[in-house]
Order: sequence, then structure tokens, then C-alpha cells
Amino acid sequence: MTLLITGGTVVGPSGPYAADVLVDGETIAAVFAPGRGPEGVETLDATGKYVIPGGVDAHTHMELPFGGTFASDTFDTGTRAAAHGGTTTIIDFAVQRTGEVVQDGLAAWHGKAEGNCHIDYAFHMILGGVDDDSLKAMDQLVTDEGISSFKLFMAYPGVFYSDDGQVLRAMQKARDNGSIIMMHAENGIAIDVLVQQALSRGETDPIHHGITRPTQLEAEATSRAIWLADVAKDCPLYIVHLSASEALEQVARARNDGRNVFAETCPQYLYLTLEDQLGAPGFEGAKWVCSTPLRSKHEPHRADLWRGLRTNDLAVVSTDHCPFCMKDQKELGVGDFSKIPNGIGGVEHRVDLLYQGVVDGKLSLARWVETIATTPARMFGLYPRKGVIAPGSDADIVLYDPNGRTRISVETHHMNMDHSAWEGYEIAGKVDTVLSRGTVIVDSAGNYHGRKGHGQFLRRGLSDYLI
Amino acid sequence: MTLLITGGTVVGPSGPYAADVLVDGETIAAVFAPGRGPEGVETLDATGKYVIPGGVDAHTHMELPFGGTFASDTFDTGTRAAAHGGTTTIIDFAVQRTGEVVQDGLAAWHGKAEGNCHIDYAFHMILGGVDDDSLKAMDQLVTDEGISSFKLFMAYPGVFYSDDGQVLRAMQKARDNGSIIMMHAENGIAIDVLVQQALSRGETDPIHHGITRPTQLEAEATSRAIWLADVAKDCPLYIVHLSASEALEQVARARNDGRNVFAETCPQYLYLTLEDQLGAPGFEGAKWVCSTPLRSKHEPHRADLWRGLRTNDLAVVSTDHCPFCMKDQKELGVGDFSKIPNGIGGVEHRVDLLYQGVVDGKLSLARWVETIATTPARMFGLYPRKGVIAPGSDADIVLYDPNGRTRISVETHHMNMDHSAWEGYEIAGKVDTVLSRGTVIVDSAGNYHGRKGHGQFLRRGLSDYLI
Amino acid sequence: MTLLITGGTVVGPSGPYAADVLVDGETIAAVFAPGRGPEGVETLDATGKYVIPGGVDAHTHMELPFGGTFASDTFDTGTRAAAHGGTTTIIDFAVQRTGEVVQDGLAAWHGKAEGNCHIDYAFHMILGGVDDDSLKAMDQLVTDEGISSFKLFMAYPGVFYSDDGQVLRAMQKARDNGSIIMMHAENGIAIDVLVQQALSRGETDPIHHGITRPTQLEAEATSRAIWLADVAKDCPLYIVHLSASEALEQVARARNDGRNVFAETCPQYLYLTLEDQLGAPGFEGAKWVCSTPLRSKHEPHRADLWRGLRTNDLAVVSTDHCPFCMKDQKELGVGDFSKIPNGIGGVEHRVDLLYQGVVDGKLSLARWVETIATTPARMFGLYPRKGVIAPGSDADIVLYDPNGRTRISVETHHMNMDHSAWEGYEIAGKVDTVLSRGTVIVDSAGNYHGRKGHGQFLRRGLSDYLI
Amino acid sequence: MTLLITGGTVVGPSGPYAADVLVDGETIAAVFAPGRGPEGVETLDATGKYVIPGGVDAHTHMELPFGGTFASDTFDTGTRAAAHGGTTTIIDFAVQRTGEVVQDGLAAWHGKAEGNCHIDYAFHMILGGVDDDSLKAMDQLVTDEGISSFKLFMAYPGVFYSDDGQVLRAMQKARDNGSIIMMHAENGIAIDVLVQQALSRGETDPIHHGITRPTQLEAEATSRAIWLADVAKDCPLYIVHLSASEALEQVARARNDGRNVFAETCPQYLYLTLEDQLGAPGFEGAKWVCSTPLRSKHEPHRADLWRGLRTNDLAVVSTDHCPFCMKDQKELGVGDFSKIPNGIGGVEHRVDLLYQGVVDGKLSLARWVETIATTPARMFGLYPRKGVIAPGSDADIVLYDPNGRTRISVETHHMNMDHSAWEGYEIAGKVDTVLSRGTVIVDSAGNYHGRKGHGQFLRRGLSDYLI
Repeated sequence: MTLLITGGTVVGPSGPYAADVLVDGETIAAVFAPGRGPEGVETLDATGKYVIPGGVDAHTHMELPFGGTFASDTFDTGTRAAAHGGTTTIIDFAVQRTGEVVQDGLAAWHGKAEGNCHIDYAFHMILGGVDDDSLKAMDQLVTDEGISSFKLFMAYPGVFYSDDGQVLRAMQKARDNGSIIMMHAENGIAIDVLVQQALSRGETDPIHHGITRPTQLEAEATSRAIWLADVAKDCPLYIVHLSASEALEQVARARNDGRNVFAETCPQYLYLTLEDQLGAPGFEGAKWVCSTPLRSKHEPHRADLWRGLRTNDLAVVSTDHCPFCMKDQKELGVGDFSKIPNGIGGVEHRVDLLYQGVVDGKLSLARWVETIATTPARMFGLYPRKGVIAPGSDADIVLYDPNGRTRISVETHHMNMDHSAWEGYEIAGKVDTVLSRGTVIVDSAGNYHGRKGHGQFLRRGLSDYLI
Repeated sequence: MTLLITGGTVVGPSGPYAADVLVDGETIAAVFAPGRGPEGVETLDATGKYVIPGGVDAHTHMELPFGGTFASDTFDTGTRAAAHGGTTTIIDFAVQRTGEVVQDGLAAWHGKAEGNCHIDYAFHMILGGVDDDSLKAMDQLVTDEGISSFKLFMAYPGVFYSDDGQVLRAMQKARDNGSIIMMHAENGIAIDVLVQQALSRGETDPIHHGITRPTQLEAEATSRAIWLADVAKDCPLYIVHLSASEALEQVARARNDGRNVFAETCPQYLYLTLEDQLGAPGFEGAKWVCSTPLRSKHEPHRADLWRGLRTNDLAVVSTDHCPFCMKDQKELGVGDFSKIPNGIGGVEHRVDLLYQGVVDGKLSLARWVETIATTPARMFGLYPRKGVIAPGSDADIVLYDPNGRTRISVETHHMNMDHSAWEGYEIAGKVDTVLSRGTVIVDSAGNYHGRKGHGQFLRRGLSDYLI
Repeated sequence: MTLLITGGTVVGPSGPYAADVLVDGETIAAVFAPGRGPEGVETLDATGKYVIPGGVDAHTHMELPFGGTFASDTFDTGTRAAAHGGTTTIIDFAVQRTGEVVQDGLAAWHGKAEGNCHIDYAFHMILGGVDDDSLKAMDQLVTDEGISSFKLFMAYPGVFYSDDGQVLRAMQKARDNGSIIMMHAENGIAIDVLVQQALSRGETDPIHHGITRPTQLEAEATSRAIWLADVAKDCPLYIVHLSASEALEQVARARNDGRNVFAETCPQYLYLTLEDQLGAPGFEGAKWVCSTPLRSKHEPHRADLWRGLRTNDLAVVSTDHCPFCMKDQKELGVGDFSKIPNGIGGVEHRVDLLYQGVVDGKLSLARWVETIATTPARMFGLYPRKGVIAPGSDADIVLYDPNGRTRISVETHHMNMDHSAWEGYEIAGKVDTVLSRGTVIVDSAGNYHGRKGHGQFLRRGLSDYLI
Repeated sequence: MTLLITGGTVVGPSGPYAADVLVDGETIAAVFAPGRGPEGVETLDATGKYVIPGGVDAHTHMELPFGGTFASDTFDTGTRAAAHGGTTTIIDFAVQRTGEVVQDGLAAWHGKAEGNCHIDYAFHMILGGVDDDSLKAMDQLVTDEGISSFKLFMAYPGVFYSDDGQVLRAMQKARDNGSIIMMHAENGIAIDVLVQQALSRGETDPIHHGITRPTQLEAEATSRAIWLADVAKDCPLYIVHLSASEALEQVARARNDGRNVFAETCPQYLYLTLEDQLGAPGFEGAKWVCSTPLRSKHEPHRADLWRGLRTNDLAVVSTDHCPFCMKDQKELGVGDFSKIPNGIGGVEHRVDLLYQGVVDGKLSLARWVETIATTPARMFGLYPRKGVIAPGSDADIVLYDPNGRTRISVETHHMNMDHSAWEGYEIAGKVDTVLSRGTVIVDSAGNYHGRKGHGQFLRRGLSDYLI
């Protein structure tokens, strides 16, 4: 199929310009000065709309087993929801559980995803146990499996936790094979003490999930990861779901020193707070139990994170999509916040929520596209196939309507959740049309044309974003 | 004319990708996936070469009157030399002398440039005297004259110097009308004391030009400009020719705070030093007398500046091209370094010298293009007309050959100088072909096809680079 | 006369200890373990009281000519008030007006003070004009006149202002002769622009005095002075009346680098604010017009300054005592805040107001004594004659009663002012007894035994506080 | 006995002054202005000498079991050596081994020390295992046993190591009971990885002890301890044996924020280096194997540490005296650096080595006394009994001769070691006379009059040094 997208404003990482985009088959064949495209081909009118690369969500957890249950979106439902929200690539996390063979974990995730995705997908690998075998596996995954990033946890002792020696060894390996270490940076050992102390004082409500994970323990772990990466001769380090000003300060300092240290934040940290959401009356706050937690509105975290997005100390916005229903899932933690499954679902809303930042004057159009698509693609070895409107790239394209309006609600969203973390939020913009590898999967009328199985596994190369 | 540039690797600010570029008339009509362009048109083979936007040199001084003489390149010779080096746009500085009407100064510079340029050109405006009239003129230049940046001097008391009250007033005005204040940040009042003390001790050699302008006095002025811009409610501030680690630290701190503070450096600060060049035997050091001066090789300035380019604390590389011949010009300062005209000529070598940074592993391809073309265009309101390979943009294009080799010498350069600041430098790359607004002005065989008068004045809009 | 002070707790800069102090004539003859002193001598019972060195106020302006009038305390009234408040030494500022011979200015101040002081006094020298003559005079004052500190102004253009070249030259001279440069660090040139703009907008109330002297312009000047002192090879620099967090940050950074940079603050900045005092209704705010100005209570200045006193980034608390009556003096600025004489009177209350900090848990006993007595004496070459309870030192001693209570009011104070900047403030402590050079000048019943002419001029040596 | 020390210069923490000191029995009875003391008493002529408080060494390890052997000095030999070097108080570390009852460990140390010490002594308590019992024991030691400081190890996994949860719990307890947490701040988990990697590469020489403990892992642990202390609501934290610039930077930053964070360094880090000592040929480097290790001479550690002493970011100089003989002890690590017992002996030389800093212009007299005596006494609740020349204080007094000369050698030292870490070092000063609680134990002729058993256990109170 050949399709000419006409009249739109292409937004690239350096800013907007008027151009017509020719899609041929699964890729972009050409980008034309307005009106200079071929005649006689099918056209899609993008007048008054932004033409942007499809969103790349570098942090999702479909069907993740956690706390005795599973994240409620499958690769089917989750990628379908993503598509509706203008995200055309996800990078999910395959999991090696402690004691398990890394490649077996990867195979299991392939098993879950294959044939089920509506959009293209790739994997990072969670290492649940760093030892001689898994270190060897890292090389094999980079070389053979298209997996060039590995996630470690300084939190969750007894589950995903790696000690500093394991972290260091994995970093040394990553430094050698060119991959990136992604880090959940919270001091889980200390947090567990605070959690037990809170519970023993009878502090069991959801808000105590946040109170027992103070910002200092995120900043500390972030700082520690940065020092360890330095010992590993500047191993590339990517801090996931950064939420606190103090942690951002650590990243900014390292970046100022020219270090290969990067960070992502998530929409929830840009908008939601400890008091207003996690502290909602009764058990309702459970909807927003995630780690790192939402932060206090009385501190400058949100403003600092927006600033970090502008200065590129925060390079990427991901969702950390990890949905759990209230019923039967979040409810596991009634009477004990520590048993509430950790996670917020949001894969569908990232493009919109960040666009609202543009409307609010907090982000430029260029940085919007960069943080939701271009940089994640570059960071994780998908560029220029993904993340940019350029000839030769996959035709993953979103027409975004700045005159549209989006209202988020559990009534209308496509994620498999019985509530929305963003219920009632209104966005002064709208995902109009979505193409995945050349196919219109969401049309301007809101009809869905995607299908399970359309999405392909993406073998990733090494990052080209390193300094 | 229609021309298809085939087989090359386009380098954009997010990185390289393979594409064919169709030039039609003066602009880029389309960018195609390799081999997807029209058949039957004239082609230019770019196989094995980088296809980059023509360089934008945001800091030149053609024919500048200084110290009783004039910079030795006219707009004719200077822009011709620029073209040979892959630079297709310059932004020169029109000068209001103290006591002069701003618009008269501008008219004088138009008089010098008009009909004489080989490539497109624009102007910043130097304000030699900030008062009610010149403040009013700032608005008029922004609105009517396509001039959206104004340069002030904290150095050169009695010549270009503005005191802090004048600086503040100009910043307030720029904040209001959307323009940018460019700052020569050296504490000229203190420097003059050191200069007089040195001369009175008989320290007259060129190296004392550098010794009497210590890094602290660049850092101090940089810091002061940043504070004053803050008082002016975050007036956009652009530090020119930043040379010292300590000054960079001031800029980095402000940028980390999310401030609209930017800086450029120049190739001379990335490669040359106080000891090796300015301290050359006899009077030879005069070749490298410029302000800010070359810095000590025993301090980490050069490494820090390269790092600053990587982190974007240095956003732009310009040349501060201000050539003076040794004979009759630099020689004015024999026996008194303070009488040596300040300036180094280099408009011809910037693209090459920065490419050498890519070869040396100090800069990525993407940052090379960003710092020499994309960002200066965005910073100064020329984007997307200049600074990017995109449909609709001016066809200012350079084919750069990474397998070529360039040796810099006064024997071969095109600037009107009797010496080269870079004599003998070898670059592991080569400007192969240069197009200015669709015309091949330098061909692959090294023949020059440009002409005086081809270059047009560019009316600039406001910056789209502000945070 | 011989007097044994018994039963008290001596507070030294390392903390309190129980001891009896034997005064013989004008000096301390011995310090005894409790009860080990001689029998048969006159005793003064200090049971339950702190025995501290008499306060050293390193910043007063008796009879200063300013804005067409004179500070309302003479050396007679001012030193008498100081004595009542437990201060037994002042260092006042002799003034060289621009164009005047330095030594003539000094002679004039000797003329005002000689025979009129109730307590000992010394002089700093204000340089109103730095030139070859005054630089030479600096040496002479250090060598012959017992004056080892020189104050410059970056504020007050046309009055006391020195430009950066003058500042640098004076710093070089101070570096050579071992003296200290004291700096009024505000960017007066920029402030004057803001003042004129405010007046032209009809903003004439006292609060605009503060608004037109923003914290950035104090921080900027502080930073600039620090850089210039660095160029002068780490000339010792003492920032007077530091009021703003941002300025403190500059000092802290320099001190962290091991630089000879010091700062004082004043009680008014620790307690009073822009909004509550300077913004008092009508013209009442004029009482608190001083420079640097009081700062906003919505910013963390006061808490930061208390912290600075704890960390020694603020080494000294002085008063900047410069009283003006409302009637005929402050009133000069009705309708034009810029004409209000700058100054707050407080020489009488410093010891009390800082003790309140001890009561409030903001300062230790040791730091109380250090900041009000020991460090100013060390800083300015009066140690160990002043500032410490030690054998051989002058018997300038205060018995301070932690169980007493002081209420400040114009009704009861001894300064020559028709109002109090501290009206109604209550202190949970009380100056009980004051000795000056062995003479009880204030007794426990509140009777005054001091006399004009008792106070002697102190020839100071060089500082022993330099790093 | 009554003894009047005449003619000397007393050095206190604010500087020197001339005074005569009267000793009566075990304490100082009075301090007199020169010549004002009683007649007819025995005198000790201190003319030309400094009269300083006896040194307080807050970090020694007599008879410490480590690596299968014991530190070679007993409380007898070690305190005798200390006395010779002008140190009259040590604070040694009682040890709770993992699994042991805290009070049993304390009892064991009392058993070693009681009746064996030549000078007064106190104990810190090492917690080898933080659990409910040891937390409870902390309270009891503070209340009943005169022990108000507890040391934890982030290094030595499997030996003394506490994890971050244990550290946090101990800090919370210390915050509550007013005691201080002392921290060995090295990331032992990561270090063990580096050690194993080095050994597996055959890197077994002593220098690899230093290389496998990089500065980043000291800085990291220091930073982590500071964050954890913050979570424990600003629990007082004292970093032991700080050796690296990067670690100092962490401490300085915390102190600048007004935090109760303190640090000590040791003479070895001020003078000795990785290359020159630890890298000595063959196995000789084993003499200098200690943790934290000696640092590279090519980095600015030593200069930064001296600066830290001047700025008080380093508040205390201790020795970390932990001697091992080469024969039979250090030799355990031939062929495997990780088996070399960690420790340097130096309790005898601290006062001299720091005085050399005064001679070299790196430290003032006042800071010399403060860092070796006054501050350790204040920090650890011994003030004013120890650490100051003041009436009522213990008569622990050193006469120090600035005209003397000391040459350090195994031939002449008094420590039970078969080598000296300082062999051949010459000091331009000399410990002349030493008094311990009123008794002359070292006389001016070098005769020793002390005796085993003279030293008493000091029950310490809470620190009075907290901010």
C-alpha cells in the first residue's frame, strides 16, 4: 500500500516543519516538501495536525508475576491499549527469576508475547540473579537475541534484589559487551526496615507505602548505582522511574561530569502526588501504589522533573505500565500496604499526558517527541528504524490533533483494568490516527483496525545514545 | 535545476541514516529512502560520504574595525573561504559604535555585505552604547530588520564596554521582545589593571595577553551575566567564545537550574594553548592573540570544553573569525601586546576541525552536525530554513568525505591572511562538495563555482531554542 | 583593684566550664578552678550566670554622614548604649571620602572618638577612592596606625563605590601587607537602574528599597568579590552584612575550597523581614531601611543564616549599627524611598538577640560567644587582648543571666533613637554585669558606672584568623 | 603535688597566649597571666615551649583480633608508646563479635585494659551484629557504662559488616539516645568482588590491596551513610579514617547543609601514598596495608585532606593505631594481599606528625591542638575534663618544643612493632614533657616515669560537639 500523508507538520527532535510523508508498504519511502509528493496515490489529510513518530514505551510489564498475582494486561490487551494511545513500540521486561536460566526466562516471555502483540515489541532482560552463568548469558543475549539492556534491582530483597557485588559484576559485563544497565534504584534493605516498623506501629494504609520509601532512599541508591558504574569504567547506566528531586540531582551531577548516566521518569510522577492520590481515603490509594512511589506535593518534585525533561537530565518518559485491578489484586493488601501489588497502568496515556505538558508550556514540541519516541529508540538500539519520521524508517506514525480533546476514564480506556489512575483527566489534544508499520490501526474516527499478531519482535542493536 | 544526491548517509541531530536527497531549485524537495528517488534526474553520487546541512557560523567579524585597523577578510573573501570549508551561512556582527545611531550602524554593515557575499548571511547587532534610543532600536530591529540577537561587551572599557546597568537594561528589553543577549564575558575593568601592571613591569610579549586575562575574570563575568539575566526575569543569554573550565562551570550550573543560558566555544579553544601558541618564540604568538585568550595546557580546559560539547552545556561551535595579518596588523603590537589586534581567522576550518573531534572519539556524528549547523540555526531563528537536511529547507548541503584528508596551510587556504593559526594541522576527513541554496559552489574536484553576490541577507525570526 | 568573679560558668569558644576569674587592675590575672582562687579579695558572685568575654561589635557607624544627615549616635551615646548591652569593644569605620587624603579621614574620626568613648574602640578604614595615594596609605595605616582592615563598596555609585579595577588593586595591596578587605557586596550599578525604574513607576514606599535590591545582586557582587580576591592571590576577604541565602552559598563554596573568605551577618537579617518590617504600613517601614535590605519571609534566608552561623560560613555577628531617627532623618525619604538614610540601630541588643538563638536551639553557647566576641577579635587582630576569658587578656567581662529577661523598647534603650527596630522583642536572658578593662560599668542592679573617655583606642595587629 | 608550669605559651583552640599553669594533684588548679602564679611552689620551665593539652587519640585498636592474629600492641605497650608521643588519652574499640552479647564484648575489653594502661582510656563499642538485643544494649551502654559512640562497618562482609537495614536501625537508636554512629565507610561487598577478580588474575602484591579498594567505593559508602543518617532524622555520624578527596566531598556537602556529619583522617593519609609505600618493592608494601588504603600520589588526596583539616570538614586526626609485625603477622599475606592483617601502627607519632603540618604552613597552631586534642574530647564526651588547658581539667599536659627535633625509627620507637611506617621521617619539633593527671610521665630528658595501671577508664558523657 502507498499512502501520502499531506498537509501536516512533522515534528522531529529539532522542531517542527511542514512536510508530506509517503508511506510505502511498511516503511516511510520519502518525506516531501509540502505538495511535492507524488500524485495519484492514496492520501491521508493531516492538515492542522502534528505528524510524529509512533511512541516508544521503553518500560512495560505485561503479565508480570508480582506479589502472588499477574499484571492484568496481557501482551494482547496491553499492546492494543498502547496502540490506541499512539504508542507503536513497547519494550517489555523478560524476567529471569532467581535460580532460573536466563535464556529460559527469555523463552517464557517470547512465549507470552509471540503472536499476541498488536504493535512491535522488544525485550529488556531482568536479571534476578547475577552469577557466572547469567553473566555469560548477557553476552549471548546481546550477540544473538537482540537484547542489549539488562535491568537490576536494588530494591525487593529476596525477590529481584541484587547486592552491590552482583551489580558491579553485571556492570562490568555490560561495559564490555556494549549493553546498558537499567536500575531500579531504591535501597530495598533499608526500606524493608521502615516497612516493618510502620506495620508494627499499625500504619497499614496505602499512603504508608510512600512514607516508608522516602526520597533519600531513592537518591541514595541512584547515587550508589552511579558510583558503581564508575568503578565499572563508566558502564552505561539508565535509572528507571526516577521520581524524586534528590535522585534527579544525582543524575544531573553525573551527567554534568560527562558520564554515561541517563534517566527516565513516568507520567505519574509528573502529575500525581503522595497526598492527593496515595493518600486517598480508605483503601482507594491502593490504585496508586507503585515503586518508586508518588512524592509529596509539598516538595518540588514535579516541577523539578519537568525541568529535568527540559534539560535532558531526564531523557525518556516511559510508563512503567504494570496494571493491577482493585478487585482481587490490589485488594490483596487491605490491612497491609506491603501486600498491595506494585504498579500503575498507563501505557495508553503517555503520549497524551506529555502533550499536555506542551500545552501547559512545560515542554517544547521537539522535546515531547524526543522524550516519548526518538530518545527511547536511540537509547535502546531501535533507531532509526523507530522513533523518527525519516525515509527508510518503519512507518510507525501518529497524527496528533492539537485541536482535539481527550478525557481519560475507565469507561473508555482499553487497558484491562477496573479503574484508571487518571480518571477524569482532560488533555487538550488527541491521538487522531495511528499507523503501525504502514497499516492504519487507529483511524481518525476512532475505529480500531489493528490485530493481535501484527506486532513483531524487534531485535535491538546497541545503543547509539552513549556519550 | 533538479539534483538527486544518492547513496549518502544523511546525518541529522539524532544520528545518521541512509537517504537520497532531492534538490529542486534552491531548496530540498524531498528526502527518499535509498533508491526510492525519481529516476531521470541529474544525480550526485554521495556513496561513502556524509550528507550534512551546510555549516552555520554564528560568529564572524568581516572587516571589523579594531585597534586602528580592519579585520583582513571582506565579506567577499571571508564568505568565499567559508564556502570552501563547508560553511554556507554566517551571522556577522553589525556594530553600533558608542554615540552612533543603531540603525546607522546596521546600514553600514548592510553596505559592506550587500552584493559581496558568496553564501547567505545574517547579522547580530553589537550595541556599543545602551541608552533609551538604542533600547528602542532593539525593538525595531527585531520587528522590522530580521535581527533578533544583540551583543554586549563586559570587556573593552572605552570601546564596546557596557556597564552592569546598561547590560541589565538591554536584558530587560530582550526579555520583552524575545531576542537573545550575546555576551563577551570578561571583566574588562579588572583586566585593564592587570594589563597596565604587566606593561609597567616590561612584560610586553604576546603571551602576556593571555596571562593578563586570567580564567577567573572570564568566569566572573560569565557568572555576573547569568545573575543579571536572572534579574531580567531569565532573559535568554548566550555566552560567546567560552574558553575556560571555570566559565563553563557557571554555564553548566545555570543550565542545570533550567535557565535560558547557552554558550558557544570556538575551535581554537579546543585545540590550541597559551603555552604552545600564544607563547611561541618572539612575536610569533601574536598570531593567536584573541579574546578570550587561549588557555593553559596544564589545566583541563580543552578536555572540559569537549565534554561541554557532548553534554550540550556548550551548544554551538563558532569561529569568532576575526583575521588580521601579521604584517602591518598584528605587528602594531610589537613591544606592547595590548596593541595587537585581537582575533584569529578560522571561518574556513570549523567543519573540518570539529570533524576531527569525531575521528578522535570526542564527539558523535550527531553532535558534530548539531553544534556546527543545527543548533546555531535554531538558536538564532534560522531553522528549519538552515541547519537541517529536510524537505522545504534551503538546499545548503555539504558532502563530507570521511576517507578524505585535509591539510591546513596558509599556502592553500582561502582566507585573506598571511599566516594560518592552524598551519600544518591535518584532518582525517574532507569537505567534498558544497551546495548553497541548490547551487554546487564547491565540487568534488575542488573547483570553485560560487560567486560574489550569490549570498543573500537572511532576516531572522526569534529563537526556537529557548527552554 | 582586685576582684574575684566566683561561681560562674565561663563560656569559651570550645564550650562552658566552671571557673573563677580573678581581675587585677585592667586585666585578667588568673582563672581558677572553682573555689581555688585567693581569699580575702573582693568578690562578685556569678552563681548561675555565664561569664563571657565582652562583646566585640566589628561593624558600627557612629556619626556617619549619610544622605545629607548623620547617624544619630555619637561615639559617646553609641558606646554607652553598647556597654549597656554587653559590648565592650566596637570597631567603627573611619571614612576617606572620594578625593580626600586617607590619613585626613582617619584623623577626623579620631577627632570624633577621642575622649568620648565609654568602651574601647578601634577603626577599620573605608576607602572612598582607590588610587596610588590611598594604596600607599594602606601600608602606612597597617604599619603605623593599628588599622589592618579596609572596606570597599560595590554599591553606592558616586558615593563610596569602587569599580572592579579599584577593588582589585586594593586587594593586591591587602594581600601584600597582610590586611583584610571588607566588602559591601551589592551590585550598585544595577541596583540604581532598578531604583530609577521603580521610582518612575511611582513605587516610592519603603518596601521598594528592598524590592529594588534583589538577592541576586547581593549574590552576584559577593561572587564577584570572591573571584577578584582569587585574582589577587587569595587576598583575605570579609563580606559585611550578608543577608541572602544566595550570597551565603557563594561564601560557603569559597570556604569549602579553603579560601580566605569570611562573612558576617547582623541580627536584623536573622529575625526581621521584608514583608513584616520593611513593608509595614505607610512610612513606618523606613525604620528598617538598611543595605543590604531585609529579605522575604517566604524564602529560606533566615533559616539559612542561622545555619551559616552554626557551620561558620558566617563567622561573625555584627550590628552594622547606623541609627537614624524617624523625625528629620528617615523622613527625608517620604515619597522617595531612595532618599531614606540607610541604617538600623542595634549596637545595644546584639548580645541579647544572639543569646535568644541559644534559647531557641539555633546556636550553641560556644558559638554564641565565638560569633559575638572571640572570632571578631581574632579576625581583626585584637586577640587575645579581647574576645576571650584568659589570663593576660583585658578584663572585658560580661556576666550573663540565663534566668533574666530583657524587653527591648525605645522607652528603655540607651541609643539616641526615637524608635527601636526591635520594639517589643523579649529575650529570655539578660546582661547582668559588665566590666570594661576591669571596671564594673554596668552592675547587677542596672546602674551605670561607665564614663565618657574611659574607652581607649585599640591599635590592631594583623588577623590571626586566616586559613 | 603542686607544680607551676611557667614561661610557656598555652595553645588553645582559638590560638596561643602566654600563661603559667598551676597543677595541683591530678588537675589544673589555675591558669595565670605570666608571672602571676604563686611563689614557692615547684616549677617546670616551659620557656620557649608550647603548653598544650595532652593528645586524645580517638581511634586505636590495642590487641585487636584480626585475620587470625592480634594487633601487636597490648594496652600496656600501646599506651606507653602513646605517652611517649604526647598522647594522654586513647579511645579504643571494644568489640561485639557477631552472635556475641554486646556487654560480654565490653567486659572482655575491660579485662584487657584494666590495670594495664599508662594513660587514661575510654571505649567506643563496635557492633558486630545489630539486632533487637544489641539495640537494647546501646541504651544500656550510654546510660550505665560511659560509652556513647558505636562503630559499624560497611566493609568486611562476614566479619564486622552490617547491612543497610542494620545500619539504619542502629542510627535510629543512636538518634534517640544521643550517641554517635562511627562508620567504616567502604563498600565491602563490591570490594570483595574486586579482590577476588584481582587474585584470580594473579595480582597478589600488597599494592593490589589499595587498587581493589578504589576511592569511589569509599565515597559511595560515605555518601550512603550520610543518606541513611538523614533517614534516621539526622543521627550524628562520624566517618572514620577518611582517606579520599571524593569521600571528603560528600562530608563537606553534608556539613554545608548543616548536618551532624563529622570525619576524622589519620596521619598516614596526610603523608603516605599508594605508589611510594603500598607499592614498595616485593612484600615491603605490606607494612602499609590498612583500610581505607593509602591513595595515589597522582591525585589530590593529600592536599585536599590538609585543606579539610583547615576547614573543619575533617574535625579530628586519629591514628587508627592497629599494629602488626611483619614477621608472623603481615607475612600471613605473602602471595595473597587479602590475607595481610590490616593496620598501621602510629599512636606514638600523631602529635609530632601533625605539628610538622604547622611547620609546613598547612595548619595553624590552634587547629593543631583542636584536631589532636580539643575536638576529639568534645566529640566524644570527654570535654572539658580532657582536651583543653583550663582550670578544673585533668592535668594532661604536653610541653612541646618547637626547637626540638624528632627522628622516627623502629630503633627508637616504643610501639611493639618490628618496623615503622614512618621510618626516617624527621619532625621539626619534639615532645618535651608529658603529664598525665598531674604526674610527669615523660620528662624533658626523655626519661619515662609512667607506669602500667596509672591510666584510668573514662566514663564518657554525650557529645557536646553536635550542631
